[in-house]
Amino acid sequence: MNIRALFAALVFIVGAAPAGAEDGYDLWLRYRLIDTSAHPALVYRLGPVVAGNSSSPTLVAAGDELKRGLQGLLGTDVQLAGEVKGPGAVLFGTPQSSAYIAKLNLPLTDLGPEGYLIRSLNVAGHPVIVIAANRDVGVLYGSFHFLRLLQTRQRLELLDIRSQPRTQIRLLNHWDNLDGHVERGYAGQSIWDWHKLPGWVDPRYTDYARACASIGINGAVLTNVNANATSLTPAYIAKARTLGNTLRPYGIRVYLTARFSAPIELGGLKTADPLDPAVRAWWKAKVDEIYAEIPDFGGFLVKANSEGQPGPQDYKRTHADGANMLAEALAPHRGIVMWRAFVYSNETPTDRAKQAYDEFVPLDGKFAQNVLVQVKNGPIDFQPREPFHPLFGAMPKTPLMMEFQITKEYLGFATHLAYLGPLFEEALDSDTRVKGRGSTVAKIVDGELHGYKYTGMAGVANIGADRNWTGSHFDQANWYAFGRLAWDPQLSARDIAEEWTRMTFTNDPRFVKPVVEMMMDSREAVVDYMTPLGLAHLMDTGHHYGPGPWVNNLNRADWNPTYYHRADANGIGFDRGPKGSNATSQYAPDVAKLFADPAKTPEQFLLWFHHVPWDHRMSSGRTLWDEIVFRYTRGVGRAGKLRDTWYELKYRPGMQGYIDDERYAQIKAFLEIQLDEAQWWRDACIAYFQSVSKRPLPAGVAPPKHSLEYYKSLKFPYAPGRG
Amino acid sequence: MNIRALFAALVFIVGAAPAGAEDGYDLWLRYRLIDTSAHPALVYRLGPVVAGNSSSPTLVAAGDELKRGLQGLLGTDVQLAGEVKGPGAVLFGTPQSSAYIAKLNLPLTDLGPEGYLIRSLNVAGHPVIVIAANRDVGVLYGSFHFLRLLQTRQRLELLDIRSQPRTQIRLLNHWDNLDGHVERGYAGQSIWDWHKLPGWVDPRYTDYARACASIGINGAVLTNVNANATSLTPAYIAKARTLGNTLRPYGIRVYLTARFSAPIELGGLKTADPLDPAVRAWWKAKVDEIYAEIPDFGGFLVKANSEGQPGPQDYKRTHADGANMLAEALAPHRGIVMWRAFVYSNETPTDRAKQAYDEFVPLDGKFAQNVLVQVKNGPIDFQPREPFHPLFGAMPKTPLMMEFQITKEYLGFATHLAYLGPLFEEALDSDTRVKGRGSTVAKIVDGELHGYKYTGMAGVANIGADRNWTGSHFDQANWYAFGRLAWDPQLSARDIAEEWTRMTFTNDPRFVKPVVEMMMDSREAVVDYMTPLGLAHLMDTGHHYGPGPWVNNLNRADWNPTYYHRADANGIGFDRGPKGSNATSQYAPDVAKLFADPAKTPEQFLLWFHHVPWDHRMSSGRTLWDEIVFRYTRGVGRAGKLRDTWYELKYRPGMQGYIDDERYAQIKAFLEIQLDEAQWWRDACIAYFQSVSKRPLPAGVAPPKHSLEYYKSLKFPYAPGRG
Repeated sequence: MNIRALFAALVFIVGAAPAGAEDGYDLWLRYRLIDTSAHPALVYRLGPVVAGNSSSPTLVAAGDELKRGLQGLLGTDVQLAGEVKGPGAVLFGTPQSSAYIAKLNLPLTDLGPEGYLIRSLNVAGHPVIVIAANRDVGVLYGSFHFLRLLQTRQRLELLDIRSQPRTQIRLLNHWDNLDGHVERGYAGQSIWDWHKLPGWVDPRYTDYARACASIGINGAVLTNVNANATSLTPAYIAKARTLGNTLRPYGIRVYLTARFSAPIELGGLKTADPLDPAVRAWWKAKVDEIYAEIPDFGGFLVKANSEGQPGPQDYKRTHADGANMLAEALAPHRGIVMWRAFVYSNETPTDRAKQAYDEFVPLDGKFAQNVLVQVKNGPIDFQPREPFHPLFGAMPKTPLMMEFQITKEYLGFATHLAYLGPLFEEALDSDTRVKGRGSTVAKIVDGELHGYKYTGMAGVANIGADRNWTGSHFDQANWYAFGRLAWDPQLSARDIAEEWTRMTFTNDPRFVKPVVEMMMDSREAVVDYMTPLGLAHLMDTGHHYGPGPWVNNLNRADWNPTYYHRADANGIGFDRGPKGSNATSQYAPDVAKLFADPAKTPEQFLLWFHHVPWDHRMSSGRTLWDEIVFRYTRGVGRAGKLRDTWYELKYRPGMQGYIDDERYAQIKAFLEIQLDEAQWWRDACIAYFQSVSKRPLPAGVAPPKHSLEYYKSLKFPYAPGRG
Repeated sequence: MNIRALFAALVFIVGAAPAGAEDGYDLWLRYRLIDTSAHPALVYRLGPVVAGNSSSPTLVAAGDELKRGLQGLLGTDVQLAGEVKGPGAVLFGTPQSSAYIAKLNLPLTDLGPEGYLIRSLNVAGHPVIVIAANRDVGVLYGSFHFLRLLQTRQRLELLDIRSQPRTQIRLLNHWDNLDGHVERGYAGQSIWDWHKLPGWVDPRYTDYARACASIGINGAVLTNVNANATSLTPAYIAKARTLGNTLRPYGIRVYLTARFSAPIELGGLKTADPLDPAVRAWWKAKVDEIYAEIPDFGGFLVKANSEGQPGPQDYKRTHADGANMLAEALAPHRGIVMWRAFVYSNETPTDRAKQAYDEFVPLDGKFAQNVLVQVKNGPIDFQPREPFHPLFGAMPKTPLMMEFQITKEYLGFATHLAYLGPLFEEALDSDTRVKGRGSTVAKIVDGELHGYKYTGMAGVANIGADRNWTGSHFDQANWYAFGRLAWDPQLSARDIAEEWTRMTFTNDPRFVKPVVEMMMDSREAVVDYMTPLGLAHLMDTGHHYGPGPWVNNLNRADWNPTYYHRADANGIGFDRGPKGSNATSQYAPDVAKLFADPAKTPEQFLLWFHHVPWDHRMSSGRTLWDEIVFRYTRGVGRAGKLRDTWYELKYRPGMQGYIDDERYAQIKAFLEIQLDEAQWWRDACIAYFQSVSKRPLPAGVAPPKHSLEYYKSLKFPYAPGRG
């Protein structure tokens, strides 16, 4: 046994130290000591004083965070003081809270209620750093921004930063049930301990709020979109109130999901018809009851007439009728309704991808002013890759919110490394062409294109009670990237990855560069080994954990993978062109033209829009069949490269010490799992598609390790996150 | 650098993780710095060397723990070395692993395979402390004992300690389902991450093993007694193997629960009849398959023909037939069967308390040699107080294991402080009188009375994925107390409480004394406010969270609280005397005589054994009705005192600093919840019983806060831990 192998073995034997600090709990808010020998200017410039009047809970939070951060980063005792008495102080506040800031007469007016500025200025004769905003929450956001500068070792000279969010409502949607189960959650139970609320207020709620505020998230939908009326009972409103009180200092409002049939289930009414006066009165009273407890309650998120949920269509009313009824009750309190466009009727459609558009576009202009329609990024369901949803750009009179899925329901659960920044970016940068070139989804979501009164972005949270919050260390980056992009949809996924890596691990470029490359390649790896070339919805039934492209026995045609890939002896893919379902016509003409023509459709969406012969020649020169095999195989190779790169990051000479053993070991184990499961996906899909295509594997390509029957036989009844 | 030195260096690097926050993760293994000014002798006596050859994984664990503990407690860098080169070294090992220890010729032979000794001796001319045992695991146990001496500030002069366990099999029973839900678990999801096993080996498994080994627990039943055949499939055996590999260095064997119908469900057989040769062959092959993967697999725990579980009676076979079939398959591998006596037939019995005895006593002598019958401490089901189970003493030819419930299914879940040491002690100290005075349950369980070949004690674990393991800080004491009593059933619950408090919080007597008093009073408080005077099973349906003495609508009579308390216009209590169910006759004559006579029955069991008129005069001089009200009210007062004492522990002048804010706050919040819920139990029970007794409350006693209808209306569909 050589020394290196022994080292590796021993690290894993002994690696199980108790209560190590590097367990991921701190997320990206790791205020570890800066090596002052490498950054003397930082220390010189900053004095040990944070100056400001903590005259509100939010300013208390800002001051505490600055103190906590500076103490950790600088390794000195930091005083929180009212006055600037020396150089290098960090002065924070609003013109109302701070006479210094009022006197500086800073250009704050056009920063809005959440924006802030950070400037190097002279105050009371001393050079200081000023974090100022119109409102307290802007100061808090600015404080986190300032700490991020230090965490990522940015220069502090001549700071002149202005920032404000491009969307108003930046939300996490928690698909958390009242019994603690998280639907599509892969990070343990819900962080909301409903049973012990309101008596026990877990300090974790505050750390959750700090993390959210640090990236600008300003709302949390506490309950699952598959809603439970019990969450609207007095006992649960009291619990939500306590959560609201805890999150409020961090600028976070609480929202609930509204079960449409609650007037029947809780109110004893015979109907939940949104035009029924008794129903309307019930909701009004319920909303008033909520606001009496939670004065800044955000509003309701509603999943109606979808996947078995009740809704207005049960009474032959429209989605607008349903949404407007709730909106009317909420309007006096300035609450909003977020109505999900992820709906499909009980009848099997010719093309599920078309349904939301067909149902919602006719309603444009019919929603009340305080209703937003929440649209998933793609027209099916959070697949590793989908084209953008055709509703974006098609409802100019109705605020459309983006709904991203941060939790990786379809991208390998918690164990696979799949950085979603590029997926979010791809969706936001998609050009709808509805008002000519540059009509990106981002500009629709942020309101620029249609002048929406409300704008918003929601992410389905990947957060649970696991110590590291998200089930894996790298999945923290997806929470982070969502928040950053909700604040500014035009940020770069790569920049966000780098920023996150620096804050979460280290600023050493020998670590940062390869890790950012890993992250940036990871989602494409998943697309390759799960659903290349525009394939989608190939997962096995119920758990969505492994491959099941053969599944064709579910009650509804559009629940079956075979409905989506349509592989047959001739070819594979869903014909959504003019001769098929004509879903392409839902896009603006300039986009529709591209998607309708197989020759112009980007190959990454080819099988999404077209049924293509197995022998079709791809741009690579390969036949479609060979290309599919190539991509699946390449995906496994990419997963292998992720694992190998990570391995090198510790064992290459000179790389010791850049990451702690604890996080290193878990990430390594997860990358091994990812590689195994990539192979499984690849092998199962090739085995199945080959049974349909009847074509040989290209020369030199390894056959699947097992028979198709073997892959079909695998069952995972206890996979986490079931719906 | 030789291999051993390299190893030692690595242990230091990895073991020296910075101390975590006071979130309870460290349990009682908190190796915080000793105030050397107060204990100079400790430091003087101990040198910074741990000497021993870590020639096995278990000795690695022992050396690692000694090093970790001494470094933390002494605040010095401790070397792990092969040689004794100076005074104050801690020398550990067996005669096989250490030439020093072999040469000392220590009296080890009668210490058995798990015992150890700790002595102050001269070795190589230096005064050292020797931890020696026959086998490696004894050294590990001795190491934890030695660290406990330091943690509790015991004198180290002239150490001469010998210890060995009085029971052989000391087990935790995890009622953990494969989907992560823990039945009757109040500390989050299961710590077993079945989904990610075997690929991901959570370091927490090792910390679990350390905690268990520190109190002598040597086995873990990984799966729920309400068993799932899937746990016996190859995929899950591979997962259990990985857990076994991880726990093995700490002397912990893994066990599984065997679903009796597995031959049908997994094997495709038509029957699970234990006398069917194909069934026997299936189990034999399955057991061989398990041992091929887990060579030291412990065996099976079986719940059969109870609460809907399949079992041998489905085929008109006896429990012995069923147990012996499994025993035959396990015997060649030295595996055991633990067959639970908690059974009741599908027909409603005249007295559920009699059933186990009636079913099992006739089978005494008919079980195979490697079968133990596992008996709950009382004849019903883990109530706050029950008399001892009449099976103890009634099966001299069959090893009877004790089954305690550590998780507080019936004692307030995670939030109520209810130290179970006194409950365990009361059960173990109960005198069965089967061989005259002094025939305690402890002496039956440890084999002394009947000369059992196997002895054991099982505790239903209260462990989950919550950061503090048990859902509350004080519930850690129940895990601790169980382990200590399993090692030695004759230990004192009070001594254990003090030991635990010192290790977990502080050695300061101003803190230790009142906290031990709180712990020692806590279970009696629960008895008072839930089930005084021998009442039992008064909880609401399903969740077992709150009171439901009125419940009488469940399918089976013996699932209803009214079945147990039998309150009517005349009185209250279950007549189990000779004129009633005659359950008293199941006890040895000297005990039966007491229990059969209301005048001689201890008042704490009065209503367990007798239906007593409301106007019966109690020893206090009060009528029974007044006494019931008095005890319920006293229980609330005791809960209030727990809260008040805790409050004082921080806010009384001079008491600052004895406990960290983090644990203090959670405990305080939980004590507030306990007080609220004590009031709820008291009020609901008094409201109900008054509706039956039609008697006025004694003068000056506060009436229930709400109406009986209010208490009946409360529903808790999402209470944790449901079965």
